This record gives sequence, structure tokens and C-alpha cells, in this order.
Amino acid sequence: MSILCVGSVALDSVRTPSGEREEALGGSATFFSTAASFLAKVDLVAVVGEDFPEEHVRFLGSRGVGLSGLERRPGRTFRWRGRYDWDLNEAKTLATELNVFESFHPKVPEPLRRPEILFLGNIEPELQAAVLEQVDRPKLVAADTMNFWITGRREALLRTLAKVDLLFVNDSEARQLAGESSIVKAVQAIQRMGPRIVCVKRGEYGALLFQPPAEEEDGVFAIPALPMEEVRDPTGAGDSFAGGFLGALAAGGRQGPAELRHAAVMGSVLASLAVEDFSLDRFRTLQPQEIEARRRRFERLTWFEPKLSRLAG
Amino acid sequence: MSILCVGSVALDSVRTPSGEREEALGGSATFFSTAASFLAKVDLVAVVGEDFPEEHVRFLGSRGVGLSGLERRPGRTFRWRGRYDWDLNEAKTLATELNVFESFHPKVPEPLRRPEILFLGNIEPELQAAVLEQVDRPKLVAADTMNFWITGRREALLRTLAKVDLLFVNDSEARQLAGESSIVKAVQAIQRMGPRIVCVKRGEYGALLFQPPAEEEDGVFAIPALPMEEVRDPTGAGDSFAGGFLGALAAGGRQGPAELRHAAVMGSVLASLAVEDFSLDRFRTLQPQEIEARRRRFERLTWFEPKLSRLAG
Repeated sequence: MSILCVGSVALDSVRTPSGEREEALGGSATFFSTAASFLAKVDLVAVVGEDFPEEHVRFLGSRGVGLSGLERRPGRTFRWRGRYDWDLNEAKTLATELNVFESFHPKVPEPLRRPEILFLGNIEPELQAAVLEQVDRPKLVAADTMNFWITGRREALLRTLAKVDLLFVNDSEARQLAGESSIVKAVQAIQRMGPRIVCVKRGEYGALLFQPPAEEEDGVFAIPALPMEEVRDPTGAGDSFAGGFLGALAAGGRQGPAELRHAAVMGSVLASLAVEDFSLDRFRTLQPQEIEARRRRFERLTWFEPKLSRLAG
Repeated sequence: MSILCVGSVALDSVRTPSGEREEALGGSATFFSTAASFLAKVDLVAVVGEDFPEEHVRFLGSRGVGLSGLERRPGRTFRWRGRYDWDLNEAKTLATELNVFESFHPKVPEPLRRPEILFLGNIEPELQAAVLEQVDRPKLVAADTMNFWITGRREALLRTLAKVDLLFVNDSEARQLAGESSIVKAVQAIQRMGPRIVCVKRGEYGALLFQPPAEEEDGVFAIPALPMEEVRDPTGAGDSFAGGFLGALAAGGRQGPAELRHAAVMGSVLASLAVEDFSLDRFRTLQPQEIEARRRRFERLTWFEPKLSRLAG
């Protein structure tokens, strides 16, 4: 199955306890499509400025990412500057320069208007809706969002969510969106807004995947994150998670309960790899057998023996 | 196998978003031994005052908890008053009255001095050490501790830890004890202090179990907590976890890598039950088949299909 992704392509300046990078390749569409490219065919729709280095275009091309929807416009590329301190779960934004992203109006090229899976990266909900209007109804519409839109563009976000099948959302943002402190109740409220599948990202604690209880007993799957000695740069972990998740779904071709669980594992696999180095650097050398080895580590991380149970009575 | 536990027996006054209780049964030894009693034989060593209600003694007795080490002394029972707000992971202590606990010097009755598993609940590290001196070397020595002892009694704690096989510790306390922000590096540092097995409790995110890599590939097991619609009272969750954990080990009789993973699951099972009601109330009606049903929910929560993996590359 094919994936179409819309989001940001950016130049990120990031400092973490492990080091720093100036104007490195970043952006939600970039991390998403590169992660997904290891598992499936993906096209992106995004905008960059005249100053966007040609080497980054070549890198995305080398990953097989379809670039016919990558618009180059007069002006400077979107830039983000951020810092992570010891709590790597939380980015401090130091500066955001929207530049050409400010007037971004995504245009889906005609040949890409029948995607089987659509990923609406974390951009204005109005732009997410504009993309939805340009495509034939995909088999699966997935979206990401953030606190900025939840508080500042709530009505537009709710209109978009009504058309979304699968929402990726942080745990604090899920609580904020639903106005519920219990994550279970928050997800139930979000499911009433539209998305029947909700994937709650919890940073170093992993992710929860909620499916409709009618389709799966209990309806919830928990996948822990891999405990790591060093996270060099958490930037892009969430988008790499979504890329691995939807890449696995596209590769498998089915979206049943077991396939969605497998997708959450593959999202965790790609996210755990992404944070091992700055920017997209880990993906530059990543080999398929390393992905499979990492997936097996998640099997070992979570395995336990059901038959050991015994009660004293 | 038999378990001996030393810790506090208390009267807790607790307020949570779900309600409140005045002077209800609480304490680390109480939660631990009651949770463990569903899986194995357990004796406790603790102290109460003259005012300790006889009904609580009868309840512990009805669970089969051995009470020959429960000392009754002149004065009032240890009391704790606390509050949980929306973030149920964090208790705010409003008042602590040590009372008879202030001069507690644990005395292990002669017939209990050869326990196979010893649990040193969260009390002064000097008292934990005093218990260790009274018993023949058990097959497994497990201990809990807290930030108060990590900062205030560090040297004594390190002396006790050198004799401990298995440490239960919160994630923030593990970081504090080791002076390391990476939980993996923190656990490695703690393992160098003595405990070869470290179980890191992460509240609503579950637990991590670290075993020596020599004994188990990777050496880490992650068990998520069960996402719950309502946590009525988180008090005692950690001690119930330890009780379920060591109860399962005692019931199985072996302490290999698979048994330790199973123990962490049973700890999660008992903790998830404990928080469904105030004080120990959930344990008053708990049936063995409910424990097994809850364990199967943890299987469904974490299950994924290994054979779905497929790579495009």
C-alpha cells in the first residue's frame, strides 16, 4: 500500500546533554517519511525555501521518498531551535522561524490523490483539512497534533478529527484535548470526536494503542519504550514512531487488531533508532537487518511466560 | 517457600479525587503481606500501639499472615496523613506521627529466623540491617527504600544495600541514589552497590526489571501498568507490587530469569487490584480467580504477534 504524508521539512538547531547540531535536517514530514521508507513506499507534500540544501533532497530521494509534492518557494526554509535538558521528554523551544512555512498551502499533485494511507503531520488543522479535501477517501487517515492547536485552534481541530481514523497524540495532550485526567477516559472522549484508533505516545515510557473494544477484547495494547543508556537527540521520535507505525501497516496491507499492534511495535522500533543520533543521522546508515534485530529486542523486552501462574489458594 | 517481611503497620488518613478515608488500615508491611498472602505463606515483623483496632489484627490473621512478630507496645500506632491530586503518581504528605514506630527495634521471633525470602520494607536502613543480623542468610533478600533515606542516611543505606539481592525502587529515587539521569546507567550503578536484581517502579507507567545480563540476554524486562478508568487510592501500590512479586517467587520456588519476569507480572497484578479501592479494601473480597483473570488481562495488554514482521527493503 502507498502512503502520502503532509507536514513540515525544517532545519533544526538542537542542543541536548549529548551535544549540539546547527541547521540539521528536521521536520515532521522528513522524520515520518524517512522512517516509513524502510517499510513501504511513501510520498511527501511539504515546502522548503530557496536555501534548502540540495544534499537533503538527495538524501530523501536515496530513501525512495517520492518528492513530486516537495514545493520549493522563494524565501527561507522553516527553522526550529530547541534544547533538551536532563528530562529528555520535554523540548524547550528557543526560536521558531516559520519563513516559507507561514504561507504553506499544501497542494497534492494529481497522481498522488488516491493514497491508501494518508498521514497528516502536525500542522495547522485547517491545512490538514485542506489536504483531506484534495484526496479521494483513503483506506486510513492518520493525524498528529499538538497542544498549540488544541488550545489555539480547537474548533478547526475538532472538524479535522471528525474525518480522522487514527490519532497519534502525547499523553498530556490527550488529557488536554479531552479535559480528562484519566488517560482511559480521555481516549474514550477522543474516540467520540472521530478517531476510532488512538495511539498515545508517552516518550521514554512507550505508547498505548486503543482500538474499539468491539474489534478487540479490552481494546488496549501497551508497548514499553526500550530503556536506553543514552538518548542523543529525542527530536523526531514521535514522527519516526508514526512513520514506522504506518509503514508497517502499509507493508502488511491489513489493518486488523494484530496488525495494529505490530504497527505500534514497529513505530517503537523506528523511534528507538531515531533517538540514537542527532537529526536523521541514524537513518543514513540503517540496514534492514538492524531493524529486525531491534524488533527482536522488543520481543525480549516484553516477553513473559503465561504458564508460570500458580495460586496458593 | 516462606517469606518474612519487616516494615510498618499504620493508620492512614487519605484524600484522593475519588474520596477520603480516616484512620484506615495501612503501612508497608500490611500491604506487602496481604498481597503476598494470596500467593504464599508470609510472616510479618512490625509494631503497633495500644490503640490498634483488633479488627485489623483479625483481618491479617484471616489472610493467613503470621502475626507472632507483631509487637504491641504502649502508646499510639504510627499514623500517616496524605493527599493525592490529579497526578496520582505523587503523594503529598500532610502529617506523619511516628508514635510507637519511633522506637521500633524489630525483633525476629526465633522460629522465623530461617526465612527463604526476606523483604525489608521501607524503614530506616539501620533497622533493615538489624533484621539482616537476626536471620540466617535467606535465599533472597529484597528491600525497598525511599528518597528520605537516600538523602538522609546514605552511608547506612549503602551498607544495607551491599547485603541485598533485589531492590525495589522508584525511577526518580533510582536516579537520585545513583546520581545518573539515564535509568539504565542508574541501575548499573545500583547493581555495583550490591543488588544484582533491580526492579524500577514507574507508577502508572509500570515497572522495569533488570537482571544481570550474564543471566539473561539484554537483562531487562518491561511490564506496563494496566491503564485504568479510575484509580481510587494509589496508597500501598508499591508494597502490593512487592508482595505480589515475592509471593509469586515463593510460590514457584525458583528464581530464574523467567520466574523473575513472572513475578514482576504478578506484582503488577496485585498493585493494579490494590488501587481499585481505598486502604486494603480491595483485598478483603479478592478471589483467586480474579487474580488469574487480571493476569490474563496483562497478557492481552502486552501481546503482539512476532511473525508479522516484514521489510520492504
